[in-house]
Amino acid sequence: MFFTKFLIVAWLFHVQSTIALESDETNNVNACNLPQSLIKEIDSYEPFVHAIINETLHGSFKGITWNELAYFVDTFGPRFTGTTVLERSIDYVLNKSMEFGLENVHGESVSVPHWVRGKESATLLKPRHKNIALLGLGTSVGTPPEGITAKVIVVDSFEELEDRKHEVPGKIVVFNEKYISYGETVKYRSKGATEASKYGAVAALIRSVTPYSLYTPHTGMQRYDENVSKIPVACITAEDASLFRRMSDRGTVLEINLKMQAKNLPNKVSRNVIAELKGSKTPEKVVVISGHIDSWDVGQGAMDDGGGAFISMIMWTGEEVGIVGANHYIKNHKSEEKNLQFVLESDSGTFMPLGFQVTGTEEVKCILERIMKLFSIVGNLTIRSPSGGPDIASWVNAGVPGGSFWSQDETYFNYHHTNADTMLVENPQALDKGTALFAALSYVLAELSVDLPHHK
Amino acid sequence: MFFTKFLIVAWLFHVQSTIALESDETNNVNACNLPQSLIKEIDSYEPFVHAIINETLHGSFKGITWNELAYFVDTFGPRFTGTTVLERSIDYVLNKSMEFGLENVHGESVSVPHWVRGKESATLLKPRHKNIALLGLGTSVGTPPEGITAKVIVVDSFEELEDRKHEVPGKIVVFNEKYISYGETVKYRSKGATEASKYGAVAALIRSVTPYSLYTPHTGMQRYDENVSKIPVACITAEDASLFRRMSDRGTVLEINLKMQAKNLPNKVSRNVIAELKGSKTPEKVVVISGHIDSWDVGQGAMDDGGGAFISMIMWTGEEVGIVGANHYIKNHKSEEKNLQFVLESDSGTFMPLGFQVTGTEEVKCILERIMKLFSIVGNLTIRSPSGGPDIASWVNAGVPGGSFWSQDETYFNYHHTNADTMLVENPQALDKGTALFAALSYVLAELSVDLPHHK
Repeated sequence: MFFTKFLIVAWLFHVQSTIALESDETNNVNACNLPQSLIKEIDSYEPFVHAIINETLHGSFKGITWNELAYFVDTFGPRFTGTTVLERSIDYVLNKSMEFGLENVHGESVSVPHWVRGKESATLLKPRHKNIALLGLGTSVGTPPEGITAKVIVVDSFEELEDRKHEVPGKIVVFNEKYISYGETVKYRSKGATEASKYGAVAALIRSVTPYSLYTPHTGMQRYDENVSKIPVACITAEDASLFRRMSDRGTVLEINLKMQAKNLPNKVSRNVIAELKGSKTPEKVVVISGHIDSWDVGQGAMDDGGGAFISMIMWTGEEVGIVGANHYIKNHKSEEKNLQFVLESDSGTFMPLGFQVTGTEEVKCILERIMKLFSIVGNLTIRSPSGGPDIASWVNAGVPGGSFWSQDETYFNYHHTNADTMLVENPQALDKGTALFAALSYVLAELSVDLPHHK
Repeated sequence: MFFTKFLIVAWLFHVQSTIALESDETNNVNACNLPQSLIKEIDSYEPFVHAIINETLHGSFKGITWNELAYFVDTFGPRFTGTTVLERSIDYVLNKSMEFGLENVHGESVSVPHWVRGKESATLLKPRHKNIALLGLGTSVGTPPEGITAKVIVVDSFEELEDRKHEVPGKIVVFNEKYISYGETVKYRSKGATEASKYGAVAALIRSVTPYSLYTPHTGMQRYDENVSKIPVACITAEDASLFRRMSDRGTVLEINLKMQAKNLPNKVSRNVIAELKGSKTPEKVVVISGHIDSWDVGQGAMDDGGGAFISMIMWTGEEVGIVGANHYIKNHKSEEKNLQFVLESDSGTFMPLGFQVTGTEEVKCILERIMKLFSIVGNLTIRSPSGGPDIASWVNAGVPGGSFWSQDETYFNYHHTNADTMLVENPQALDKGTALFAALSYVLAELSVDLPHHK
């Protein structure tokens, strides 16, 4: 988070003073009815924007985001909430931010959940022996040491579960739901255990929420309703879920042993990483640029959300376990909310940029659209609504105009919360473009002479 | 293998006698200078070909190949050479072939290698603890029970290994080769252990040979040169190989512990699955339609080569461990080779069909091209050279005209020799088309009044 009206990512800061201002007379069409003076002002930032972009894409900062991110995720590996390694990685970023000359660099403490996976395994015992790849879900309880051995019922939906509820007691419920989209399908991961438990299941195994699998289990959070018995729950692969469905459709009796050492331990303290770059005219006005530093305990957290954090350099903790860090910060800094000019987040991958997803008044969107024209050397960037950023959602819901980085993320859910979330997903050019866009957009928003209106 | 001139996959056999012959006057362009009478003959098979295709794609056989294959691979799972389950799956196919009314159904015994994977694990010990996914390679020796713990050298090529050979003694060599194509890149899997051992390595870990990874290790065969110490060798994921490269490029010292229980045991007896459909006019003349029934010990062997075997219904054993079954058969049936009209194989996936890859004289290719025109209701199928089938290669090398099924296999090496080789790769429509093409092509080749010439 930057407390500034003259905001720019630190290592690009020197650029703004070295480029002469040139007027731009070409782009003065205003479909949005913005005041002509505002259009002129926005367009006047083009030389600065181009300087930032060129220096990032072709100059001394070329490739730096990828290199810095690779060093970070290779060195620390995954950074799960409640672990020492997350806190060490936070120390590293705090030190790095100070080295970069950012101001008021500090961690802000926040109490975070502490779930530990432990060892976990699942085995198909009948009709034949088969090891089942799985990843337990965050907040899941464990099994007894000998595991849970039970017969299996396979359903494709909550509706089918309801229809066949008399078959559920004492069984392990396998959800073999069809993947429609993450947004629509993730309810099986979030609520599968609760729904299965309602009808007397002893455990739940959920088909991983993904459009593409190479026998790839995905983890993620789940939540128990208060009025149900807590049963162990894990995601299995699309391959095994569909295998179990075919087998049981043939009338075969399936039996599975599930062992999970998962534990919910007392909360730990983590920290949001805050760094600022104070402006001179109205230093109380703020543009926020953010990603999250924590990750799941698999892969490297390079995509979710290493890339997002590293194009921001500003990092929330505890996103994966319930947006804990950001929401704590937002609550604790409620009085400063009125001074927020714009809040930015990247948490949907840092692939080749398409633009920004924005929530705000029509005027805000018009201003953003006009700013996008300055970025044409990076590509044909556009604005769409609403903003999709989970960490900034509380601000956006409270009326602060906000946007999330939008990139060519078709493969995002192939990697999401898996061992495949590594540097192989990240592309140096795409990261440079993301860095350039975040830096240049936040520069323009901070320089802008008007305050962006908050929405209702 | 069918010993027949009136060959057709058994459950489509009834079709040929129920359809009246209709002349086709439209397609008489002959760029190949085939005799006009032969063109006329080929074109005269169109009604039969259409009947076979329509019955398979839209009639009573719609979806049957997928269903039969799913039942087979779901029931038996992977069918690795040397295992009881492979032999049980062979018994099942023999019985099924008899049920289908095929003739002279029998297994022909062949001695096959017996390599056992056992438990295997690898752990990065320095600079930080990390589990490493791996799959040991066929014929690899194991490690002592406590494993091999050694420092790591990472190379991208055999050339780099040679350049840095003084660094190799006592180390684990990680090959982080770039994937170009399976054909070009697989040498690192095949020979990596030998090349590393030459310079004193204690083990070799090879980046899996694949264009796309979701932290997916691939297995496969390797061979030791006679004059080198046998060192354990496994494939690791693209993700970990590139991680180790980045780490060592930064000057970090890496240490790995590798444990493999792999063992080479005395040969076992397996069987090729032979079924015939004898013709009446020249029953000694033969068209072969084949796939292989064995698979690697991971996944389900649905793609490699369940689909190929099930569009053929005729199955070699021991392909994965060195084309053992087919080569044994070809050697033992050398005297019948002159009677082979054509040999067909499917072992590159059964995706949506593109045509056939053919090796033979120009005349053979011209005949095949003309036959392809009869299949236009399935798609615009073409012939390309050479044939790519490993099991029929000895025949093709000896001059027998041969072809392999060619389909939209861009993703084949995503799944190849992995746990992701399951029914999710297989598409019912594509399998129906493959079945229709194999049945119709073999029908036409068996009916043809001319003997296809053998090449030099």
